[in-house]
Amino acid sequence: MMLSDPSRKYRPFPQVDLPDRQWPSRTITHAPRWLSTDMRDGNQALIDPMDTEKKTRFFEMLCRIGLKEIEVGFPAAGATEFDFISGLVQSGRIPDDVIVQVLTQARRDLIERSFESLRGAPRAIVHVYNAVSPAWRRIVFGMDRPQIKQIAIDAAKIIRDEAAKQPNTDWHFEYSPETFSTAELDFSVECCEAVMDILQPTPEKPIIFNLPATVEAATPNIYADQIEWFGRHIRNRDSVVISLHTHNDRGTGVAASELGLMAGGDRVEGCLFGNGERTGNVDLVTLGLNLYTQGVAPGLDFSNLEEIVQTVTYCNQLPVHPRHPYAGELVFTAFSGSHQDAIKKGFAAQESRNDELWDVPYLPIDPADIGCSYEAVIRVNSQSGKGGVAWVLQQDKGLKLPKRMQADFSKVVQELADASSRELHASDIWDAFEGHYCLSDGQSYKLVDYFESGPAGNRVFTGKISHNGEERSISGRGNGLISSVLHALREELGIGIDVIDYSEHAIGIGGDVRAAAYVECKTDDGRTIFGVGLDEDIATASVQAVLSVANGLERRNTTAAKAA
Amino acid sequence: MMLSDPSRKYRPFPQVDLPDRQWPSRTITHAPRWLSTDMRDGNQALIDPMDTEKKTRFFEMLCRIGLKEIEVGFPAAGATEFDFISGLVQSGRIPDDVIVQVLTQARRDLIERSFESLRGAPRAIVHVYNAVSPAWRRIVFGMDRPQIKQIAIDAAKIIRDEAAKQPNTDWHFEYSPETFSTAELDFSVECCEAVMDILQPTPEKPIIFNLPATVEAATPNIYADQIEWFGRHIRNRDSVVISLHTHNDRGTGVAASELGLMAGGDRVEGCLFGNGERTGNVDLVTLGLNLYTQGVAPGLDFSNLEEIVQTVTYCNQLPVHPRHPYAGELVFTAFSGSHQDAIKKGFAAQESRNDELWDVPYLPIDPADIGCSYEAVIRVNSQSGKGGVAWVLQQDKGLKLPKRMQADFSKVVQELADASSRELHASDIWDAFEGHYCLSDGQSYKLVDYFESGPAGNRVFTGKISHNGEERSISGRGNGLISSVLHALREELGIGIDVIDYSEHAIGIGGDVRAAAYVECKTDDGRTIFGVGLDEDIATASVQAVLSVANGLERRNTTAAKAA
Repeated sequence: MMLSDPSRKYRPFPQVDLPDRQWPSRTITHAPRWLSTDMRDGNQALIDPMDTEKKTRFFEMLCRIGLKEIEVGFPAAGATEFDFISGLVQSGRIPDDVIVQVLTQARRDLIERSFESLRGAPRAIVHVYNAVSPAWRRIVFGMDRPQIKQIAIDAAKIIRDEAAKQPNTDWHFEYSPETFSTAELDFSVECCEAVMDILQPTPEKPIIFNLPATVEAATPNIYADQIEWFGRHIRNRDSVVISLHTHNDRGTGVAASELGLMAGGDRVEGCLFGNGERTGNVDLVTLGLNLYTQGVAPGLDFSNLEEIVQTVTYCNQLPVHPRHPYAGELVFTAFSGSHQDAIKKGFAAQESRNDELWDVPYLPIDPADIGCSYEAVIRVNSQSGKGGVAWVLQQDKGLKLPKRMQADFSKVVQELADASSRELHASDIWDAFEGHYCLSDGQSYKLVDYFESGPAGNRVFTGKISHNGEERSISGRGNGLISSVLHALREELGIGIDVIDYSEHAIGIGGDVRAAAYVECKTDDGRTIFGVGLDEDIATASVQAVLSVANGLERRNTTAAKAA
Repeated sequence: MMLSDPSRKYRPFPQVDLPDRQWPSRTITHAPRWLSTDMRDGNQALIDPMDTEKKTRFFEMLCRIGLKEIEVGFPAAGATEFDFISGLVQSGRIPDDVIVQVLTQARRDLIERSFESLRGAPRAIVHVYNAVSPAWRRIVFGMDRPQIKQIAIDAAKIIRDEAAKQPNTDWHFEYSPETFSTAELDFSVECCEAVMDILQPTPEKPIIFNLPATVEAATPNIYADQIEWFGRHIRNRDSVVISLHTHNDRGTGVAASELGLMAGGDRVEGCLFGNGERTGNVDLVTLGLNLYTQGVAPGLDFSNLEEIVQTVTYCNQLPVHPRHPYAGELVFTAFSGSHQDAIKKGFAAQESRNDELWDVPYLPIDPADIGCSYEAVIRVNSQSGKGGVAWVLQQDKGLKLPKRMQADFSKVVQELADASSRELHASDIWDAFEGHYCLSDGQSYKLVDYFESGPAGNRVFTGKISHNGEERSISGRGNGLISSVLHALREELGIGIDVIDYSEHAIGIGGDVRAAAYVECKTDDGRTIFGVGLDEDIATASVQAVLSVANGLERRNTTAAKAA
């Protein structure tokens, strides 16, 4: 039972002695170099690793996104890996500005096989690693520090010699003191410097030191401290590229990479949507778009994020969670009424301000920037208020309901949502709208035909109205169309209503334009009834809106009579 | 096209002026107060909000986990919400040590309805909020700072007066300057102090100030700076509980809460598995278990995490991602061979060390602590090496293969994995094992019967062996059982093999115990062949292991003859 005494099994992670740390006052002002390890760290963690077709598809997508450094696999891991890498290199399908990287353990046979897989590549990065932390030294290898360092030195020598055998390739090197984040910092520096002694990097051709949080074991500030400490202590800093490689065991992989960049990281290794062993590697999509929303160009193109989601889901056979930052299907959705209201106002302000600066409540990024439409933003359930309903009608039908009518209709929707206890779809809302405002077929009063006549200020409405199938000719006089209709209804049909508010607007543009008219009426016995009319002709829409109220009144009276 | 100029639309988030910040040198040494807002912030973001049955189930689960503060809803949002809350309060189903909280906007009608829903509660927290940031003031409300502050003051007065009308309830109050993280810090403090002036908290009965990152808009260190700044500037700090409420729009919600705790937060609001608007609220499960792995008791019981996953998935109708920290189905899984090897060694070291401290490579937490079995840890695909295969055989069949035999068999599995390009299940591996070591029916040589005789050091094997259906009586002499069998095979059947290594072990314990024997043999023509024997009797298992090699040799010879 875990409540008893957890300290029985776990120890707090030690602090880094760095009281004058600088990173908390820094910001990220430019994009790092990015390395995708989807095809290696990601792939090795898949239930079903990618076959050649999927790997090819993934590689091409990474190139389209703009990745310039791609770890394509672990060539010595098996025939599938070797054949794919060797085939890719020889196919000529690697763009000129993309460099491929392969991973190998620090063993002669594996290193040699890795170089073999890259034969013919114009340039490539060979990435070698060995674990350096005390737990790994003790439990996995049974070796002391000098022995572990010697593994790195020996590997560096083999790499140097293998590279010399293929002089036509422009070789670059990456060394990972694996389990860096749980190792002694001075020992990681010692191993890296020993590797540097062999491989002799220069500012023109630096070595990449990749500093992995192989297993995330502390709050992300500790990783930043470790990166800053490493950067301050490593020799020849200008011949070194510090690469960050965080995992997400504590759910803070993105934070660790961001704070690590503030602490001096130059490069980030990760996977799209955070694929990788266990909880995954850091998510390059989130990191990239986080930069974007701070006004920093990530150098990665996520403008069609939905397509990327589809390709990655296909290749990895793993889902992207509905709440995954930026990419999840619900992350631009607002169900809450107050959120919906604020978002609507934000869009309106954005439009009227027209300064191109993004500032919409509850939306950290413009969905359009990643290929999403605004339409998904607002959805309606029992937690939604009037704003969301009005938005859906506007998006779906082009209707811009007046404010009091929004409140009237939102009550209808709220009752429906409470009763159904599920999300209401646009079609549910439209059905409710048609029903409540008597727009569907089978209403009591229908307009058959009408014409208007007379001078301005003294208009005459002459029309045929069918009432429950029986056609009636009616006419009325007023200072405008609506008042003349009201008079006709009152005098000839005994319908006692007055209009207290009226508005109309066009729906659509160009030749296909239609008109919407809204009326708020008071009945003689003091009730408020709203009506809507939709028609190709704006005048006819107004007449229809008044008839919508007449029908609403008749329905209420019928219902009341039945109830009595 | 986003590569062109992202600064067109987005601005970097401003720094907090706090050069002497203390939080980066602090650690989290005790658990915060936890508030679950699953039934409010989480629920309002669901496609289908919970009905009463689901809400009841969720509430009871939260109580079992050990949540003592639970925000049960937004009573003024609709009939479903009000009825559930009111029903819960009156049912007596709220444990004595649990306090329920409700949220309301800062409006008289909504506050009154909220108090109404809590009628009869022995104690409760009323949580009121209004948004204070410049964007919200300008875009959503069209109000200046004094007007926004007045909303908070007016709400506090209504709350004070409503509370006085129900004196039998022990009332507590929470105020959120919503959009705190994107507001001016001095204005948030100003609003909070204005509320304090009305509600008059004391150290014995403090007010909760909830400081939300309503939309996550900056790196998590900025939120920590904001929390530390607030804590240093708010009046009567000892009468204030600082509550953190982070969202996850940038994927750093967990980090922001953790750094916020280091910066002085007393309390955390969040949802299980990070449910909530858009990308969700901070995940309480990850936060709690992160504490746990640092030797800090979270005061929350996740010892049956799988059951919690099932209940939350049912109630929210949203999945928990396979890579979700601690809870995802893949987070304790290692497919990579080197990872599998290290984990195996870690378990072995753990067993032999027996100091109860958890220290297993690649596993940040003991899966058993959250109700997971070790069996899920290692799975085999084409990225796996010999360690994983051996582990699966050990977990599944109790077999502990000698090291060279592991290497022998792993080649078989690697070929199978490369050919099938999918995860291999335990049954695939067992089929391959039976096939490769001739354990299945239909082998050439079968043991019919045997007995041993003679003194130690000079034993005689006398047995009946069927060869392709034809029974042969054979005998041989040696210094032990195996050598006498080898002699019998060589002299009577012409099978030229010698044993160069041998091991055996029991499978299972007690009455159901079986035996496994492994032999590594050299053939007269220099080939190495491994064999396995499984039997209730350890001696018979040894004989079977030798016959397994004989069958393996015959199969190889037959295959070679066919190929020639």
